[in-house]
Amino acid sequence: MSYVYDAIIVGGGVIGGSIAYNLSKRGGKILLLEKDRLASKSSGAAAGMLGVQAEMDAEGSLFQLARKSREMFPKLAGEIRETSGIDIELINKGMLKVAINEQQQQEYKRLIAIQRQSGEQSDWLTGEEVRRKEPALTDAIKGAIHFANDGQVEATQLTLGFLNSAAACGVVIKEFVEVFDLQLSKGKVIGVVTNEGYFASENVIVAGGAWSNKLLSKTGLELDIYPVKGECFSVVTQSQLLTTTVFSPSCYLVPKKGGRIIVGATVKPRTFNHKVTVEGISLLLEQAKKLMPSIIEAEWERTWAGIRPQTGDGLPYLGEHPVYKGLFIATGHFRNGILLSPITGEIIADMVEGKPTSLNLKPFRVGRLIKQLT
Amino acid sequence: MSYVYDAIIVGGGVIGGSIAYNLSKRGGKILLLEKDRLASKSSGAAAGMLGVQAEMDAEGSLFQLARKSREMFPKLAGEIRETSGIDIELINKGMLKVAINEQQQQEYKRLIAIQRQSGEQSDWLTGEEVRRKEPALTDAIKGAIHFANDGQVEATQLTLGFLNSAAACGVVIKEFVEVFDLQLSKGKVIGVVTNEGYFASENVIVAGGAWSNKLLSKTGLELDIYPVKGECFSVVTQSQLLTTTVFSPSCYLVPKKGGRIIVGATVKPRTFNHKVTVEGISLLLEQAKKLMPSIIEAEWERTWAGIRPQTGDGLPYLGEHPVYKGLFIATGHFRNGILLSPITGEIIADMVEGKPTSLNLKPFRVGRLIKQLT
Amino acid sequence: MSYVYDAIIVGGGVIGGSIAYNLSKRGGKILLLEKDRLASKSSGAAAGMLGVQAEMDAEGSLFQLARKSREMFPKLAGEIRETSGIDIELINKGMLKVAINEQQQQEYKRLIAIQRQSGEQSDWLTGEEVRRKEPALTDAIKGAIHFANDGQVEATQLTLGFLNSAAACGVVIKEFVEVFDLQLSKGKVIGVVTNEGYFASENVIVAGGAWSNKLLSKTGLELDIYPVKGECFSVVTQSQLLTTTVFSPSCYLVPKKGGRIIVGATVKPRTFNHKVTVEGISLLLEQAKKLMPSIIEAEWERTWAGIRPQTGDGLPYLGEHPVYKGLFIATGHFRNGILLSPITGEIIADMVEGKPTSLNLKPFRVGRLIKQLT
Amino acid sequence: MSYVYDAIIVGGGVIGGSIAYNLSKRGGKILLLEKDRLASKSSGAAAGMLGVQAEMDAEGSLFQLARKSREMFPKLAGEIRETSGIDIELINKGMLKVAINEQQQQEYKRLIAIQRQSGEQSDWLTGEEVRRKEPALTDAIKGAIHFANDGQVEATQLTLGFLNSAAACGVVIKEFVEVFDLQLSKGKVIGVVTNEGYFASENVIVAGGAWSNKLLSKTGLELDIYPVKGECFSVVTQSQLLTTTVFSPSCYLVPKKGGRIIVGATVKPRTFNHKVTVEGISLLLEQAKKLMPSIIEAEWERTWAGIRPQTGDGLPYLGEHPVYKGLFIATGHFRNGILLSPITGEIIADMVEGKPTSLNLKPFRVGRLIKQLT
Repeated sequence: MSYVYDAIIVGGGVIGGSIAYNLSKRGGKILLLEKDRLASKSSGAAAGMLGVQAEMDAEGSLFQLARKSREMFPKLAGEIRETSGIDIELINKGMLKVAINEQQQQEYKRLIAIQRQSGEQSDWLTGEEVRRKEPALTDAIKGAIHFANDGQVEATQLTLGFLNSAAACGVVIKEFVEVFDLQLSKGKVIGVVTNEGYFASENVIVAGGAWSNKLLSKTGLELDIYPVKGECFSVVTQSQLLTTTVFSPSCYLVPKKGGRIIVGATVKPRTFNHKVTVEGISLLLEQAKKLMPSIIEAEWERTWAGIRPQTGDGLPYLGEHPVYKGLFIATGHFRNGILLSPITGEIIADMVEGKPTSLNLKPFRVGRLIKQLT
Repeated sequence: MSYVYDAIIVGGGVIGGSIAYNLSKRGGKILLLEKDRLASKSSGAAAGMLGVQAEMDAEGSLFQLARKSREMFPKLAGEIRETSGIDIELINKGMLKVAINEQQQQEYKRLIAIQRQSGEQSDWLTGEEVRRKEPALTDAIKGAIHFANDGQVEATQLTLGFLNSAAACGVVIKEFVEVFDLQLSKGKVIGVVTNEGYFASENVIVAGGAWSNKLLSKTGLELDIYPVKGECFSVVTQSQLLTTTVFSPSCYLVPKKGGRIIVGATVKPRTFNHKVTVEGISLLLEQAKKLMPSIIEAEWERTWAGIRPQTGDGLPYLGEHPVYKGLFIATGHFRNGILLSPITGEIIADMVEGKPTSLNLKPFRVGRLIKQLT
Repeated sequence: MSYVYDAIIVGGGVIGGSIAYNLSKRGGKILLLEKDRLASKSSGAAAGMLGVQAEMDAEGSLFQLARKSREMFPKLAGEIRETSGIDIELINKGMLKVAINEQQQQEYKRLIAIQRQSGEQSDWLTGEEVRRKEPALTDAIKGAIHFANDGQVEATQLTLGFLNSAAACGVVIKEFVEVFDLQLSKGKVIGVVTNEGYFASENVIVAGGAWSNKLLSKTGLELDIYPVKGECFSVVTQSQLLTTTVFSPSCYLVPKKGGRIIVGATVKPRTFNHKVTVEGISLLLEQAKKLMPSIIEAEWERTWAGIRPQTGDGLPYLGEHPVYKGLFIATGHFRNGILLSPITGEIIADMVEGKPTSLNLKPFRVGRLIKQLT
Repeated sequence: MSYVYDAIIVGGGVIGGSIAYNLSKRGGKILLLEKDRLASKSSGAAAGMLGVQAEMDAEGSLFQLARKSREMFPKLAGEIRETSGIDIELINKGMLKVAINEQQQQEYKRLIAIQRQSGEQSDWLTGEEVRRKEPALTDAIKGAIHFANDGQVEATQLTLGFLNSAAACGVVIKEFVEVFDLQLSKGKVIGVVTNEGYFASENVIVAGGAWSNKLLSKTGLELDIYPVKGECFSVVTQSQLLTTTVFSPSCYLVPKKGGRIIVGATVKPRTFNHKVTVEGISLLLEQAKKLMPSIIEAEWERTWAGIRPQTGDGLPYLGEHPVYKGLFIATGHFRNGILLSPITGEIIADMVEGKPTSLNLKPFRVGRLIKQLT
């Protein structure tokens, strides 16, 4: 009889990594399969913003999940450093969501009121206050919300930190192993078929980002999930031009260590082509120059793109398959995969263990948005 | 009603490229789909030897095919340069198959006799003659067969040359489009399901190298094909140390323009992991030093690996699917993909057109080595 | 007594390479010293245009030199391929110098008249004719001069082609050897002091591009030469968007093989800093989009910069030092180093040999623009 | 009148960086000039070992300096992280100096006795104890000294950490500025001549590593300093194969975060050529396989080389020029530049300020080993 794993994770990105990390701390024999290199897709392309309020509606269910996840980072950073030696480069310098016109100004002020009710620290800064804080930003900025609690990490380091820590705790990690098919039997999953043969487990977690649907279509259902390309570029300045992450509707600037600034990201739905286009760079460059004119003095560094998994209602899928027991799904995090990875790992590990949760996960259940395949 | 292509080629390597190139010259609307970048797998990793006699049994069916294919290169080089501006860097400096011990010496001399009967030019050189021709080679070489007609090309340039020429003739080429499934109906293929939707055609050619089986398993049959990793490294010398390609059972040295020498290749079956191992480099390095001691003075350049498709009997699959009409297969070329690409493109284009061939293709038919999937 | 070379060349770029190549064909023991890697500075950064008329005044002395040099390329391409196996990728598809406004239109038409008198083929194309030839170009182009005889090469390949051919003919080439000082005695040069010791020769040729002055200042004279940074980027298109080189006052587009287009180049005087700035990329991108709007669909490839040697009167220095016999200088070619390299190599080789020339080299003599150092 | 700096530092490596960092904390206007990119030479190539005892004679003067410098790292790591956000990746997992034969075993045991007298923690481990600590090491190891206090940092991050922190404190840093000459007047230095013009200061610190002599020869003296190339390669393992740095006379293994291991370094004197040779890689690979046989399973990553400054007596030069006041020299650290950088920065900053030191710096004085130039 062949070896049976306690759980098999499909996907070596930040979500698969966090699930592996969480499961490994609870014992059991875990296998993680990645069809390419670890952290080679969206997780390795992310700017690493932990923007709880920047991208979300403060009244929504995702907001509460994101807040909890953001709180987990300081402890996590210590654990990962301890186990793997990797520094996830957690920075807590806050974020500025800048308003360029009157309408945004009014909208953002209303947003502050709502977020304060939920207990988040968010303050309105006038244009002058913004420039006092970040002198490199343009005069055209009328004002900004300052989210003091938002921060950022280095996305690849976080992903490898999860994975190396999991490996140190005994998780078997295989790169270049592609899962072709799920083995299903009597209403439950029993294993996976790969290019390196069959692996058996009654718990299979699909954390394949935008590529998840290819596998899930084998179950007769298709999730409402699609790829969204995001292009970025980075520049380097000798002296630190910026310290706070700056977020505008069309472009963000994320200051990294050593004078590096990441400028991101375009939003190009329904393509898996991760080539960077001249159009994408051109758009980002124009926006970045508008926000911070002195960026033109910086050194050009490099360009890249990631393929992020978006869903029909903008919420991730977190839960068990509606038909097949033991088949868990964790994908659809779109631009929030890095931010949501700690809580996602914990949620899925709890589900695999059959442990109840105090969180309201109903909005994220897998059965909410599916298409029956004929 | 959706658009129907005259043919769809799955795979953007040298085989897919050659088929696209051949079909494009005959008219019709052709689509080529590649799941990653063009030439990103085995075709971009090959050293480009056109070693008709070096690797093959002169009495076998593959030998005849290889000879015909090799003859096609000079004309092809001109055509590709004309159409796409790409130089495939065809060099006709011959090849030395070197014997280190008495036994090899005897075996190689017998080989010469056989090959001469088939009309090939192959001559025995004594150790001294070898070193007069290539002074950098070791004294330990007892002698060598000199294949005056063997040559080499730059493998990536050949692949891109086929593909760019095909594109110039109207072939639609899509990168990052993965074929998930074949649409089959009433004993024939009618289209492919991809991550960018459905594409219809009654002619689908699978040229996916070692990855072909994933797709073909949908037809209820599985080819006896498996991946074989080959690791390589390259060095650069200021003055040309070597002009002839040198082939020994454990390692080959391929001199490229500008003083570059490619040293290859390990043979590691049944893995898709294209990472280069310390073991592989270590083995190649020892062999290369034995063959050409002065290689230690060269500059170290880089390392890489390719995943080549091998078959159970060592022969490629070239032909139509035994069950589904219109589904053609061209894979399993192992270390001879570059050499066999011109003839393979012509053969498959003929089959798609329904044109009879004068070649004996029976040894390569798809039905010879298959496993019925349950 | 130490070894004495027949000539020592300082500089491993395209000019030093051409001189080495020319001298090597005439016999004698030649040494070439490069402080970094070969072709690592301006020669490796050039787009490779052979734009005789595009950048020059048809009545000037440089124009005549450039025409002669351009004529040398076809034969040279064959020789280099023969000796070193390197393809310099000579393309003869002509060049379009495009006019955007009425004023340029008038000016360019006058230019045509002058150039025709000098025997060059240059034709006026209307805006419509331009777009018929190159459909990707913008409607805003009013017309263009078509220089049918202008072409282009791959600059790094040309440089390495010269150098590898020279090496094959016995020239000793040393990388990472920096010349600190010139040894001068009784009105002539007798050797060079380097980080690898002393090398003796009564002929020393300084071909150090923008870095030449550092060395020449040891002679008590300083040439009026200064560095000009040029930034570039490249894009790749699947099908060939462009076949002719396009030249406008603010930006040029050079189509290379395989769908690559080089967009260049900024002009930033008096800096040796070869970092690419956001400003440079931003400027080029805007210009390129204006000339060829569909460039936005291309894939972004990479950015780079070169430091080109400019002179006070825009003409290169070609000749012997006004004070020290045997000390030759060949630098200051600015944006025309690739184009002028064949003739420069021949001129300097003639001078070293003491052979008379039929060319009028007076405008390029070293003594014309110098500063006495105190 | 032109601007006068309080000090000018020549060299943007780890030594120049530490001096800039130390001077910047004491106020004053400081300029740092680097002829290439920051950290582009030896400092960016180092493995980052803090091997106080591994490489030095415990009775020597360098040993005391090294101990003091090593003690400075924990505080420094915090400061740099605070000022620049850069993590220098300080790891304190100790070092094993392994004995392969009986003779080494005896010698190392004597070494322990001496080092203990000096207050250092060093313990003898038997072969079995070594393998219990590091199971991947070979059975051939007879025993080892364990230096519990030795550690390591990431060399490039340390260098950039110094430099970015200095920049944050107001130091002006210019890349691609080469100092051609020192301006000397009446027994003191008054400025430097560069490719960007003249900069005035009565304090000039030459921290140019192996390139320092070129500049110092202008003072009529030449230091007994020469370049030594060191080649390295790195591998990556999925699970951590090694946690302690391993040092043997012919090769060291430095485990980095994320499963990376650096294998170094060859010792090739008197060359500035930083190309990696096949010979160097071959030697290191053989040694590494002997020390840790399972390294063959690792993934090959990359190769590189650094040019380290060695001196005639193996001690660095730290001090003022014997003839010219205000001209300070800090070079010749050979393989200990990273380890000695903190104390070197402090020593030179004290000298520039004219502050007395409690250290015995006599063995490092500049006047001890010089050649009068004719």
